[in-house]
Amino acid sequence: MDKSKKTAVEASINEALRDKKYLKLRNELATLKPADIAEYIMRKESKDRLVVYRILPKELAAEVFAYLDADVQQTLVMSFTHEELSSVLDELFLDDAVDFLEEMPAYVVDKVLAHTDPEQRKILNRFLQYPENGAGSLMTIEYVMLNKNYTVEESIGRIRRIGIDKETVYTAYVTDNMRVLEGVVTVKDLLLAENDEIIGNIMDRNVVAVHTNDDKEKVSEIFKRYDFISLPVIDWENRMVGIITIDDVVDVIQEADTEDFERLAALRPSEKPYLKSSIFDLTKNRIVWLLVLMISGTFVGTLLGIFEDAMLVVLVTFMPMLTDTGGNAGSQAATLIVRGLAVGEITTKDFKKILWKEIRVALLLGGILAAFMFARFTLQYALISREDIGANVYLTAAVVSISVFFVIMISKVVGSMLPLIAKKLKLDPAIMAAPLISTMIDAVSLTFYFGMAKLILNI
Amino acid sequence: MDKSKKTAVEASINEALRDKKYLKLRNELATLKPADIAEYIMRKESKDRLVVYRILPKELAAEVFAYLDADVQQTLVMSFTHEELSSVLDELFLDDAVDFLEEMPAYVVDKVLAHTDPEQRKILNRFLQYPENGAGSLMTIEYVMLNKNYTVEESIGRIRRIGIDKETVYTAYVTDNMRVLEGVVTVKDLLLAENDEIIGNIMDRNVVAVHTNDDKEKVSEIFKRYDFISLPVIDWENRMVGIITIDDVVDVIQEADTEDFERLAALRPSEKPYLKSSIFDLTKNRIVWLLVLMISGTFVGTLLGIFEDAMLVVLVTFMPMLTDTGGNAGSQAATLIVRGLAVGEITTKDFKKILWKEIRVALLLGGILAAFMFARFTLQYALISREDIGANVYLTAAVVSISVFFVIMISKVVGSMLPLIAKKLKLDPAIMAAPLISTMIDAVSLTFYFGMAKLILNI
Repeated sequence: MDKSKKTAVEASINEALRDKKYLKLRNELATLKPADIAEYIMRKESKDRLVVYRILPKELAAEVFAYLDADVQQTLVMSFTHEELSSVLDELFLDDAVDFLEEMPAYVVDKVLAHTDPEQRKILNRFLQYPENGAGSLMTIEYVMLNKNYTVEESIGRIRRIGIDKETVYTAYVTDNMRVLEGVVTVKDLLLAENDEIIGNIMDRNVVAVHTNDDKEKVSEIFKRYDFISLPVIDWENRMVGIITIDDVVDVIQEADTEDFERLAALRPSEKPYLKSSIFDLTKNRIVWLLVLMISGTFVGTLLGIFEDAMLVVLVTFMPMLTDTGGNAGSQAATLIVRGLAVGEITTKDFKKILWKEIRVALLLGGILAAFMFARFTLQYALISREDIGANVYLTAAVVSISVFFVIMISKVVGSMLPLIAKKLKLDPAIMAAPLISTMIDAVSLTFYFGMAKLILNI
Repeated sequence: MDKSKKTAVEASINEALRDKKYLKLRNELATLKPADIAEYIMRKESKDRLVVYRILPKELAAEVFAYLDADVQQTLVMSFTHEELSSVLDELFLDDAVDFLEEMPAYVVDKVLAHTDPEQRKILNRFLQYPENGAGSLMTIEYVMLNKNYTVEESIGRIRRIGIDKETVYTAYVTDNMRVLEGVVTVKDLLLAENDEIIGNIMDRNVVAVHTNDDKEKVSEIFKRYDFISLPVIDWENRMVGIITIDDVVDVIQEADTEDFERLAALRPSEKPYLKSSIFDLTKNRIVWLLVLMISGTFVGTLLGIFEDAMLVVLVTFMPMLTDTGGNAGSQAATLIVRGLAVGEITTKDFKKILWKEIRVALLLGGILAAFMFARFTLQYALISREDIGANVYLTAAVVSISVFFVIMISKVVGSMLPLIAKKLKLDPAIMAAPLISTMIDAVSLTFYFGMAKLILNI
């Protein structure tokens, strides 16, 4: 549906809502996708939200509920009757119900669990206990399981009978009588096979599965690698416990990337969207690194104290250029390595190759930048301004450009190696945030800079 | 399959290859997934690659081919016979064939197209002309189309007949006699409906579709929003031209994130994996920004020249702290905004909310950091070292900490607003790379710093 059509439908929904024409409201809402209805509800005032939500057919209501932001879910749930609460929990897919409960404060979870039957409560409690970063937390139990002794016809019949509440029916999991996973069969395979063929003969025995405790990153790597739509989750005795579907994995990939972005920018990763984060949350996520880096920055300065006598004004004016160049060159290298590790293009085993590559790149880059800097310096001080800088212009130009070369070399090596070292130590490579690298490089390169000045300019 | 099992299979494949036991080789390979066979081939010497590839059954060979890196595809293709080339093109899904051709140099494309029949060549040429950033370039034509007048039984029959070569059979597209898209129906719907029901009555008329020229980002947003497995592509008369499947969209999301990472780190985005990029490519992608930023950095210095008389050594030693803090604070804000825009959490319309939020965060952060800095400064110079810094210690501490406060304020505002301005001007927000922001902030904040020193310390 294109934008103008969507706006027209929305205007008509607003009108029906205002005029309390509930039948019309319900019919108009039904022309929208669940994600669009959720967005519409979130844009409304709280009193309208409940009205719109209550008018939706039961099944659609649950689908819409899964797309709502946690704060809207919470206010809705607090106004729900007993029946509404039971109904939404019955209709939600298990993974969506668990996602919702994980976001709620304890008193809401208690209210919700009080309205479920004992069997459902047991399942929900089990799912809530899976570690947040594990495959178990992405899992759902609404999948189709077939016995390997079924025929194709029996299998299709079973899917027709039980499929309606399953999150995906396109891949069915074939097990023995003890629920041990033995193979998979797709609906495509079923449709293309003879009716009386035995499932055990047409299933693909080469199944890729994960365990409940495997971490989310592993799950998303498997999806990216094999282009799956769903993936079975098994326990330590190879028994089926659930499946993970690709729509949840898209979110995992995006969350992991967001965390890397945040770490590289010296932020504490946060799950809350920016606009929903309070001033205090935002401050909390930024203050630690800023404070640490600010204080380390002052030590860089203290280090420079020993070169007090070498601090010609002209040298001081090139300090920002030097520290910025080091920071930029370092963060270029660090970002490529962090990203390469994240998408699986490089591993820690490649460290020699990377080091050798970065050294050669740094030779080239450093050479070009140093030459530019020498030209720019002599152009200004020997040809244009001709002012007295307190030292020989060409020697000073040499100090500045040799330092540029040194800075590039050290920052490319440090920037590329630190993320690999972090990975080797089983830390997040992005934790070697570009700013941390910058501070280290600042210290080394400014010391080198004023040291060179002392040596070459004899001051 | 777990790692140890995989290593065992690989050892056995290596053995069969070495001993030229081709039947065993073929059987062992068949136990691996196409993605794993491709990885195995890429790890081998070139002469072994062709042997392993040739032993694969035709259909599996095409699947494996799609997973190979472009350079390996190219060397294989150059060794292919006429028959092998035709066969791989016949078996590849159209989108994989187009992806492959797009990566090849012109002479390889010519060789390949010379081996296709005229009809296939026409389709390939049309697809190769779709703009690289558009929905058309992600599209495939292997989908199931149903006429709205079919019954459920006829439809299932049709899927059974023609489904085998289709990339997905799980969503079928329902059209009128002129191929105009009218609705979608999933295999799940078909399996759950009565056999004699007419498709036109059970199809979902509320179809989301994209046009061939819509850009990739729009496509990936739709997939993320609605949790689709596939999406129809239509022309300007609403006629079906192809579909996009979710596995290709996962790659789009990842590529877009990689580009943002690169832009934020002042790198020119590149499509080549790090380890496959030459030294010259890497240098080329880094040099421009480094050069621009280095030269701008020297102007920051020149600006400082006017404060020559205010340059107490103690003030100079706090310069790195000040510029680093500004850079870090700015890149924190910029990263949150760039990421928020990318995942659709914020839009340019939110700019007032964001500005107000950042100002309050900056007040808090700036206050805390300035207090720390005042304490650290007076602790060192009034209590511990007691050295003569050439000015009143408390006034100098005030200059440094007021500057810290100012730097935080200016960098949060600039860092959050520049990406929004870029977006408004229809530029990539990540192009307002954190380093560019740092250089701007350096200039403003160092001028403020030495200006304050002149004013407060009367030097």
